[in-house]
Amino acid sequence: MKFSPLVQELINAFKCLPGVGAKSAQRMAFHLLERNRIGGTKLAESLAKAMENIGHCRQCRTFTEQEVCDICLSPKRQARGQLCIVETPADVIAIEQTGEYQGLYFILMGHLSPLDGIGPDDLGLDILEKQLGQGQFSEVILATNPTVEGEATAHFIAELANKYQVNISRIAHGVPVGGELEYVDGNTLSHALSGRKHYSF
Amino acid sequence: MKFSPLVQELINAFKCLPGVGAKSAQRMAFHLLERNRIGGTKLAESLAKAMENIGHCRQCRTFTEQEVCDICLSPKRQARGQLCIVETPADVIAIEQTGEYQGLYFILMGHLSPLDGIGPDDLGLDILEKQLGQGQFSEVILATNPTVEGEATAHFIAELANKYQVNISRIAHGVPVGGELEYVDGNTLSHALSGRKHYSF
Ligand SMILES: [Zn+2]
Ligand SMILES: [Zn+2]
Repeated sequence: MKFSPLVQELINAFKCLPGVGAKSAQRMAFHLLERNRIGGTKLAESLAKAMENIGHCRQCRTFTEQEVCDICLSPKRQARGQLCIVETPADVIAIEQTGEYQGLYFILMGHLSPLDGIGPDDLGLDILEKQLGQGQFSEVILATNPTVEGEATAHFIAELANKYQVNISRIAHGVPVGGELEYVDGNTLSHALSGRKHYSF
Repeated sequence: MKFSPLVQELINAFKCLPGVGAKSAQRMAFHLLERNRIGGTKLAESLAKAMENIGHCRQCRTFTEQEVCDICLSPKRQARGQLCIVETPADVIAIEQTGEYQGLYFILMGHLSPLDGIGPDDLGLDILEKQLGQGQFSEVILATNPTVEGEATAHFIAELANKYQVNISRIAHGVPVGGELEYVDGNTLSHALSGRKHYSF
């Protein structure tokens, strides 16, 4: 004997969420059914709209429902000639919150991971190289996570960017080794940005 | 600077789930957007259908899209004259999995909690009393959780059921004090059921 088909279908559907197993999925389903149908209906609508309409910014690759995102469209940011390369859209928010940076971003949506089959093209490095080739940037700031994969990715991009006339720097000071950028406090991140060093090969 | 409106709306919508804060909500949104749009779309559909169509069984109160659930409709179960009272639909599944019980259920969808304003009518005890009054049951098994609230709820229902000609028992042996029924292993739960004692006032 199981739950009714529709209840079971809802529980199964929740398992697509990261870190959600059978028990959590059940708790989520019961919670919404019993206590928050309005919230559940709203989540269904947001989810349907988001899955349908959110794509990647054509320039920086962040998630957006626009073809080009607001940051990329800003003439003031374009004029600075700076490009900050991060792993995720959450890292952009974290850096924006420091107020230390006013340039553009490029979001890799991950890092190089040969074992998982994630190579340069999966990170949009072909798009990045095209942008660097157009000569609109004078500085590239490598702000991937200070993890093994993040460092390897930064190194790979530094080699790539070095073919063009750009100053390459890596955020460094204050970022704890082995950590993830989006969990670093704003103050530490400010220091990491202002203390960035010229990339040494 | 924030995420784009649609991305932000999706993150906010995920916060209606129990135990999901800003960071988890963000992780869920990014995971679906980046890696599982099909799963996300399926979740949206299941959720919309579930919030719209799942109600409570008119007899036992469990979640179902039918007016009366399959368990309640079973003539074989009706013939046994047993009613097992539990707190949640998950408890029904746990008890069904022991294979020790073939009677009907009544699901309280919670327990008495005066501080939260949850009284007898919120648990459907008016419906329960009407069913007991119809004389179709010879035994009522109190299988609420072995917590303070569950015991208090069992006691309240025992008093109520005692007005009618029914044998009242409480699952007892093997259920750890302070635990929650749905996490008890099947073997322990079998013992708790077969070792049930006559309710003592
Ligand atoms: Zn953009
Ligand atoms: Zn039923």
